[in-house]
Amino acid sequence: MSRQILCLPGDGIGPEIVTEALKVLDAVKQRFSLDIEVSHALVGGAAIDAEGTPLPAETLKQAKQSDAILFGAVGGPDWDDLPMTKRPEKGLLGLRSGLDLFANLRPAILFPQLAEASSLKAELVAGLDILIIRELTGGIYFGEPRGVRTLENGEREGYNTYVYRESEIKRIAKVAFEAAQKRNGRLCSVDKSNVLEATAFWRELVSGMAGDYSDVELSHMYVDNAAMQLVREPKQFDVIVTGNMFGDILSDCAAMLTGSIGMLPSASLNEKNQGMYEPVHGSAPDIAGQGKANPLAQILSLAMLLRYSLGEIAAADAIEQAVGDVLDQGLRTGDIASEGCRLVSTAQMGDAVVNCL
Amino acid sequence: MSRQILCLPGDGIGPEIVTEALKVLDAVKQRFSLDIEVSHALVGGAAIDAEGTPLPAETLKQAKQSDAILFGAVGGPDWDDLPMTKRPEKGLLGLRSGLDLFANLRPAILFPQLAEASSLKAELVAGLDILIIRELTGGIYFGEPRGVRTLENGEREGYNTYVYRESEIKRIAKVAFEAAQKRNGRLCSVDKSNVLEATAFWRELVSGMAGDYSDVELSHMYVDNAAMQLVREPKQFDVIVTGNMFGDILSDCAAMLTGSIGMLPSASLNEKNQGMYEPVHGSAPDIAGQGKANPLAQILSLAMLLRYSLGEIAAADAIEQAVGDVLDQGLRTGDIASEGCRLVSTAQMGDAVVNCL
Ligand SMILES: CC(C)[C@H](C(=O)O)[C@@H](O)C(=O)O
Ligand SMILES: CC(C)[C@H](C(=O)O)[C@@H](O)C(=O)O
Repeated sequence: MSRQILCLPGDGIGPEIVTEALKVLDAVKQRFSLDIEVSHALVGGAAIDAEGTPLPAETLKQAKQSDAILFGAVGGPDWDDLPMTKRPEKGLLGLRSGLDLFANLRPAILFPQLAEASSLKAELVAGLDILIIRELTGGIYFGEPRGVRTLENGEREGYNTYVYRESEIKRIAKVAFEAAQKRNGRLCSVDKSNVLEATAFWRELVSGMAGDYSDVELSHMYVDNAAMQLVREPKQFDVIVTGNMFGDILSDCAAMLTGSIGMLPSASLNEKNQGMYEPVHGSAPDIAGQGKANPLAQILSLAMLLRYSLGEIAAADAIEQAVGDVLDQGLRTGDIASEGCRLVSTAQMGDAVVNCL
Repeated sequence: MSRQILCLPGDGIGPEIVTEALKVLDAVKQRFSLDIEVSHALVGGAAIDAEGTPLPAETLKQAKQSDAILFGAVGGPDWDDLPMTKRPEKGLLGLRSGLDLFANLRPAILFPQLAEASSLKAELVAGLDILIIRELTGGIYFGEPRGVRTLENGEREGYNTYVYRESEIKRIAKVAFEAAQKRNGRLCSVDKSNVLEATAFWRELVSGMAGDYSDVELSHMYVDNAAMQLVREPKQFDVIVTGNMFGDILSDCAAMLTGSIGMLPSASLNEKNQGMYEPVHGSAPDIAGQGKANPLAQILSLAMLLRYSLGEIAAADAIEQAVGDVLDQGLRTGDIASEGCRLVSTAQMGDAVVNCL
């Protein structure tokens, strides 16, 4: 039976980079005789414009029925003035919670060909390879109650709730311990347990699981220190696990350490290994439609999709190899351009990857 | 009438670096004929050991009666296993809220003499001078309800509350706008208004005040992007204002960009300009008592104290000048040591600053 991939290009540069990823998918389908069907749906601003809502019921339904989702990016100035519940981001958040995609894997890898793009000194980032595992369907992102209320004295106050249940913490910790086992065996759990009860509870539960993973060296770090240590000496980390909010901040910080955020893919998985795959970068409305966007993060997101949700390891390996090859050839989009390299468009970059397959 | 400074050395390296700052205070008292009285009290682990509580009532009382507080650092492995309400950190948090020290000013400045200590490339940080203004007595640090509860299904869950009232947001924003007016006129307010209602409320109120400060250029940034931009191009910032939790993370990240966290002071002020002054670095229990600690952040905290709470600008300027002089002379403690410089002890560094006065 053929596998189903749902494409959700979204807004900004989303459609143009998804187009390139689909060229690459066609190439690996042929080379590896994969039986994969692709369908499309609307999400984010594109869905707001067409149907008045960032996550149409039909999109969520198709997403649930597919084996994996290739997601572009959402958001842009056209929709910035909408109330929070109607914004493009709600499409993304609705998919995460609707499909229970609780495990967000965000690798921060330095491509040796792009070493000089980092704002950090070369020796501090050479060979950098961190995996940040962010809880994605809980914490303050989804906690209730939330909103703005008026107090007795007439003043207003805004409030949100940071909350984690035992089962939510244990399932993300399990993913993290297992990921560390497959990598270098080191796991750092990040919290603010000296101030926040909810994260002290997180630390207690993660510590309690360490006995089941005696081959993993578990450490704990406060989030403020983690932000410092990422800047000071990022290679001290192997796998980092943390909650939704801290993960949002630390994963972007870690991605930027590589200097090549246009290169970084991510995966969001549920218990069934159904997954949504998207670049770490956003919709970049300022360069949308100009053929300037770097499609490699989207293409590498496709590789992750093939690896994690479809189990097509050879195809995933081939794509990652091809991306390395085009970098070796000196091809660069504007975001990773450097002297002596050849500047190419979004489509030329996609074609070059296809040629290497 | 003489002004009162309360010294709270705390734990770890706190006592030894406060000792050096007091030497410097004696020197400027003499040189500028200042009438200042110094008293001492216990806080943190030291107070737990002596009196069973991290913030004895007597300490809080003395703090309230003083014009300013010179704070060392709290915490260490000896007290790590205590329950959250009894830990050394509660002493610090209790002082912040007890004195209503809502405005935390954290400069991230690169000392030209220490330019190479940064993990960032030199051109990205040369001349770096950012001021992070962190709200310090509200947000998720103090929000209620908080704790761990058992759900109907028998599962436990940990929870905290992120909450900001109108008046809390407006008073910190006022401090930030005014600070920007005195600096380069640019203010960046950091939030996560695309996800969290409480921070969308923050953005709404800060935006509403911009009209009163037409000489300040106000911008807004999501916290994940701010963490990235600090790493990518820190010099784009002048003043950053944000809530307690985000401020904790971003200020540590910004401090580390300078590579010299042992050099950075901070001030925590209330409406009356009463203030608590402390180094950005922590209690460093691993090097405590060995004469290795860098006293300069504590000494620069004293300079901030003289400037902000006592209005002794000339004395503050003189101390900052003297710190620059000892760096020019090539004196370095271990944390900022580099080739060709002279390694000195905590006390030698303090003495050298005194000699320059
Ligand atoms: C767009 C936004 C809602 C989202 C998040 O905060 O999770 C983004 O920053 C991300 O990290 O995927
Ligand atoms: C020690 C801790 C409670 C404190 C905080 O989180 O505020 C510290 O990290 C700081 O930034 O002053």
